[in-house]
Amino acid sequence: MDTSSTTERTAAPSSEGGGQRVKVGIAGASGFAGQELLRWLAAHPRARVTTAMSSSPDGPARTLPALTRIWDGVIEPFSADKLAEQSEVVFLALPEEAAATIAPTLVERGIRVIDLSGAFRLRDAAAREKWYPATHLGALEPVYGLTERNYDAIAGATLITNPGCYPTAALLALEPLAEAGLLAGEVVIDAKSGISGAGKKPSDRTHFSENHGSVSAYGVFGHRHQPEIEQELGAPVTFVPHLVPLDRGILETIYARVRPGTTPRDVAELMEAAYRNAPFVRLTGETLPEIKHAAYTNFCDIGWRVDAAGSRILLVAVIDNLVKGAAGQAIQNMNVMLGYDERTGLLPV
Amino acid sequence: MDTSSTTERTAAPSSEGGGQRVKVGIAGASGFAGQELLRWLAAHPRARVTTAMSSSPDGPARTLPALTRIWDGVIEPFSADKLAEQSEVVFLALPEEAAATIAPTLVERGIRVIDLSGAFRLRDAAAREKWYPATHLGALEPVYGLTERNYDAIAGATLITNPGCYPTAALLALEPLAEAGLLAGEVVIDAKSGISGAGKKPSDRTHFSENHGSVSAYGVFGHRHQPEIEQELGAPVTFVPHLVPLDRGILETIYARVRPGTTPRDVAELMEAAYRNAPFVRLTGETLPEIKHAAYTNFCDIGWRVDAAGSRILLVAVIDNLVKGAAGQAIQNMNVMLGYDERTGLLPV
Amino acid sequence: MDTSSTTERTAAPSSEGGGQRVKVGIAGASGFAGQELLRWLAAHPRARVTTAMSSSPDGPARTLPALTRIWDGVIEPFSADKLAEQSEVVFLALPEEAAATIAPTLVERGIRVIDLSGAFRLRDAAAREKWYPATHLGALEPVYGLTERNYDAIAGATLITNPGCYPTAALLALEPLAEAGLLAGEVVIDAKSGISGAGKKPSDRTHFSENHGSVSAYGVFGHRHQPEIEQELGAPVTFVPHLVPLDRGILETIYARVRPGTTPRDVAELMEAAYRNAPFVRLTGETLPEIKHAAYTNFCDIGWRVDAAGSRILLVAVIDNLVKGAAGQAIQNMNVMLGYDERTGLLPV
Amino acid sequence: MDTSSTTERTAAPSSEGGGQRVKVGIAGASGFAGQELLRWLAAHPRARVTTAMSSSPDGPARTLPALTRIWDGVIEPFSADKLAEQSEVVFLALPEEAAATIAPTLVERGIRVIDLSGAFRLRDAAAREKWYPATHLGALEPVYGLTERNYDAIAGATLITNPGCYPTAALLALEPLAEAGLLAGEVVIDAKSGISGAGKKPSDRTHFSENHGSVSAYGVFGHRHQPEIEQELGAPVTFVPHLVPLDRGILETIYARVRPGTTPRDVAELMEAAYRNAPFVRLTGETLPEIKHAAYTNFCDIGWRVDAAGSRILLVAVIDNLVKGAAGQAIQNMNVMLGYDERTGLLPV
Repeated sequence: MDTSSTTERTAAPSSEGGGQRVKVGIAGASGFAGQELLRWLAAHPRARVTTAMSSSPDGPARTLPALTRIWDGVIEPFSADKLAEQSEVVFLALPEEAAATIAPTLVERGIRVIDLSGAFRLRDAAAREKWYPATHLGALEPVYGLTERNYDAIAGATLITNPGCYPTAALLALEPLAEAGLLAGEVVIDAKSGISGAGKKPSDRTHFSENHGSVSAYGVFGHRHQPEIEQELGAPVTFVPHLVPLDRGILETIYARVRPGTTPRDVAELMEAAYRNAPFVRLTGETLPEIKHAAYTNFCDIGWRVDAAGSRILLVAVIDNLVKGAAGQAIQNMNVMLGYDERTGLLPV
Repeated sequence: MDTSSTTERTAAPSSEGGGQRVKVGIAGASGFAGQELLRWLAAHPRARVTTAMSSSPDGPARTLPALTRIWDGVIEPFSADKLAEQSEVVFLALPEEAAATIAPTLVERGIRVIDLSGAFRLRDAAAREKWYPATHLGALEPVYGLTERNYDAIAGATLITNPGCYPTAALLALEPLAEAGLLAGEVVIDAKSGISGAGKKPSDRTHFSENHGSVSAYGVFGHRHQPEIEQELGAPVTFVPHLVPLDRGILETIYARVRPGTTPRDVAELMEAAYRNAPFVRLTGETLPEIKHAAYTNFCDIGWRVDAAGSRILLVAVIDNLVKGAAGQAIQNMNVMLGYDERTGLLPV
Repeated sequence: MDTSSTTERTAAPSSEGGGQRVKVGIAGASGFAGQELLRWLAAHPRARVTTAMSSSPDGPARTLPALTRIWDGVIEPFSADKLAEQSEVVFLALPEEAAATIAPTLVERGIRVIDLSGAFRLRDAAAREKWYPATHLGALEPVYGLTERNYDAIAGATLITNPGCYPTAALLALEPLAEAGLLAGEVVIDAKSGISGAGKKPSDRTHFSENHGSVSAYGVFGHRHQPEIEQELGAPVTFVPHLVPLDRGILETIYARVRPGTTPRDVAELMEAAYRNAPFVRLTGETLPEIKHAAYTNFCDIGWRVDAAGSRILLVAVIDNLVKGAAGQAIQNMNVMLGYDERTGLLPV
Repeated sequence: MDTSSTTERTAAPSSEGGGQRVKVGIAGASGFAGQELLRWLAAHPRARVTTAMSSSPDGPARTLPALTRIWDGVIEPFSADKLAEQSEVVFLALPEEAAATIAPTLVERGIRVIDLSGAFRLRDAAAREKWYPATHLGALEPVYGLTERNYDAIAGATLITNPGCYPTAALLALEPLAEAGLLAGEVVIDAKSGISGAGKKPSDRTHFSENHGSVSAYGVFGHRHQPEIEQELGAPVTFVPHLVPLDRGILETIYARVRPGTTPRDVAELMEAAYRNAPFVRLTGETLPEIKHAAYTNFCDIGWRVDAAGSRILLVAVIDNLVKGAAGQAIQNMNVMLGYDERTGLLPV
């Protein structure tokens, strides 16, 4: 990890005056993640949303009735110039192609960018070509924004690629085990996601009647969060996401082989060491976490069980896909970038 | 009621040979009501679906995976000619304009038609002009297919206009009281409907995330089922529908003033007299019905309470909007038209 | 309204030193409302939970996994003495009999009490005898804590009776109209509530399978929130609550006659005048509010429609039953009692 | 498989006269599975429910409002004698201890018994001792009632042990592959079940508010359906069930290694061969099945995907836990035992 970057942290635009607020712009503010950014940033004591734009340059400005009294601003048509002029930090909640187009310009102008799309997540050129064909890295050096695992690099970054929702939960659960060399053999990740994960656009897939009373698997052997998990974990995984009939939240059940003789206590020690200073990771031990407890928060809850023989482990990791899986982690990353306490605006500090 | 029609009943196309099945065509078979028609008709011992068509002449034929082994046919592109050639009875589950266009031709060719759209529900020309501008009655004399209230007319009909889902529950609950002159003053109908009532077309309104954990009122003072209820009841009502986060079913809470001194027993006697021979109306008395009990059935469950002063009544009526509120009642009407036991294919006879 | 009490406001225990926090005790902290109190109070900048107790003196202390990192305290067995010793303000989230027993002692000891049960809501002795037989007012003079309607009296109160969830939404919607003499004739309140309103205790009524896919009416002509609404409104109402398949939130559809010629603009003016300074009432005008927008907040959203004749009004009011309908309003009342900005801990100030 | 039993089939009590109906008794008729038995048997053309009993000898007789007009009988207190006297076939939907006590007596009296509890599922004495300590096999030779896999033995059985809901889906998906020697290495079964699977008894676990908007894993490394699956499959599996927020239905995602080079076509051929004559297994191929399509039916839908390398397989199997996972399969077994077409009463024959 890049620990030299810690000095950089204090050079954040608004940290000079304690009470000052950094100027934040949001592109793609009408989608689910965009609205969630607005909800949290509106209550952030060190940030001020100076512009919120839709993902399109057309169409009239509009308000968000659900956010009345929380954020009373207006969502404007997209304008790259205005976005750059009004912001010190920009959150991109755009389709990947649009993010890939706008991000370099913003970075060049010295603006800190946190991208919530997948445009910059894969580093391998062949993988990018396959999964995100309309994007390109160019000279950019995005930092992968899994806050708890990459804190120092994030602190010094100018472009953060915010992790996918599924990778966030999977990697927070698996990385400490992988790092300790505990994992042996195949890893299976069975993920259950609320429907907000399928986006705001109406489709057969997001119709209420298709999901109520139902569960469905999708993206088998072909979901682009799989290469993202594999890139960060450095090992192949089998990843199958499912839609479950709820709005917000992801639960991932992770099946792995571990070095024989592993005890729950071994796992607990590894996990506690990894997340001792992580305010947003709650370790539940052998009491497995449930979506309900993490929904509407920036927490990732992680529990585990080891079988009697000490050779199989089961991990359960839970997040709110729109918070720790998107907007919340993006703000957590902004906090780290700007040298704020990472809890700022997300938990009482 | 038209009791002269009872002789007509025995002249139904397929009632000559006991085992014969009437040839049924369905137009608009891919929508929710259309699929529900297929599900029930596939198990109907006196009917055979000879053709099932989508609402459009374009596009490829397709199958319905959910109905595999229940109905294994193919949904063809719409063709009015083929529909007429292959059917003795036609169910129209089309948009109202399409229904208004095709129905007269079918009727002229001697085909029995049961229309599930609103095209033929309103008899008053001005009301039609306002609520269903793209339709016209011409020389047609549709019979309003609220089976329990209009049995004899249905038995002799060539064109049935199947009631709206909301009117079905409201009228079955209110008509016996209205007929007995028990109602005094305003009637308020507060309806709660599952999302399938909003149709199969994806929209913001049918998005899972918009409805999960939410309830919303819509169509206040402007839903076209209101004039339909008023036409049949012969009295003004206040009708407000709501969407509730479930798939199938309607519960209507009906508030009315009654002649002072009315007792629950008075109401019970009226109701029992009205529905003595109605296999699909279940009277629950002072135990109010719940959606769960009527879902996936052709029942309408009705309960009531009278206040201590005997001047206010509360009725609760429950149906499955796709069965008694659409496909089931349509088949019940077909049964009556053809002289079958009205339970045929809907309940064990 | 009691405006003489405004001086009292500034004498609040902890308002002397700006940064000081008032010591708060909670009795009944393991129920839904109790946990919601803990969640909000944990983030309240001017309050500190000094003790949280269950409703029973028996049983071991326990933690609340869902609140880890939000509130990491321990729920102790109930002890009236300890509660009194450790608290300047006490929230009672107990069954009504227990609340009726403990409240007088606390008040005598100079502790500010906010009671979330129904023990002190009804002022008429006969009504209390009927609806809350196990309670008694004695010499207590509880103030009805509908914050927006009773601000000044709350500011000077020592005992607040926090309103019922249903009355909160109904009264906020109706009182401005009643006060202006606009209401004419009967008022019907059709309420739809999430299942958390039925409490934490497992029963057939709260079983998942009984509610999923269903809606049910209950308490017809016999719910004790009806006399509470009538007491505050000063007029009879017909009130019927329903359970709808969601967890949190209430939507009330209110039907009333108004003075002929009333326009939506008239209603808007009345409402705006009534709630000009009310941060937690959001007026949505003719766009009717939905539960989703108010869930997890302390807002009450109110919208309305007037019919073409200007004689019938329909109001829709929405709250989260556990926030504005219980814990949130209780904290709002505490804020007012202690002279804090009423938004403190509930919205960014 | 026991093919000698086919002659036995024709000796079924009521198959002599085509129109006769076998006399059926149900013990435990008030639970979810019991009510589902009543619902289907009421419409079964070859069976007549002669007695339906609760699981307790105490308490008054009661009716089931949800089944009015479907089954209008009365649920009586439990009486072993009466059950034996009135029944040719008995369905036991009792707790396992009660089933273990009553079944031998019934069998001795020549009554065909189909037990829906786990009392007789495990054949290994040590496994029984661990998972079902209060039961014992004695001289009984129960036949495992996975209809499609054990048809001939079921035809000749006097005591059927109806499979668990989870094993039903898992075994129907896995057994053809196991039999063909295609499976290589570990099998992981990640199961998602509706809440009705947790039973009718109210508890924290079945409370609406605990499940709405949530998903939870349970029974990790300790659910007694795991030894049942392993017994029938003859191989170890990792099995983790989850509760998902819906009422009825199970989806199981099954992860396995297969012999390298396996193609989807290989799998399809095996599956088609296995289920060519199985009316209740619907193979969906590479289109993975969803709970919605199988809910309220006796179908088990099975789909699969093989990875590009042909070494990993993913199977998805879906059932309604109360139908194919309990009551429906029990009736299917009765049909086979009595020499009826196995679809009788479950699908149009």
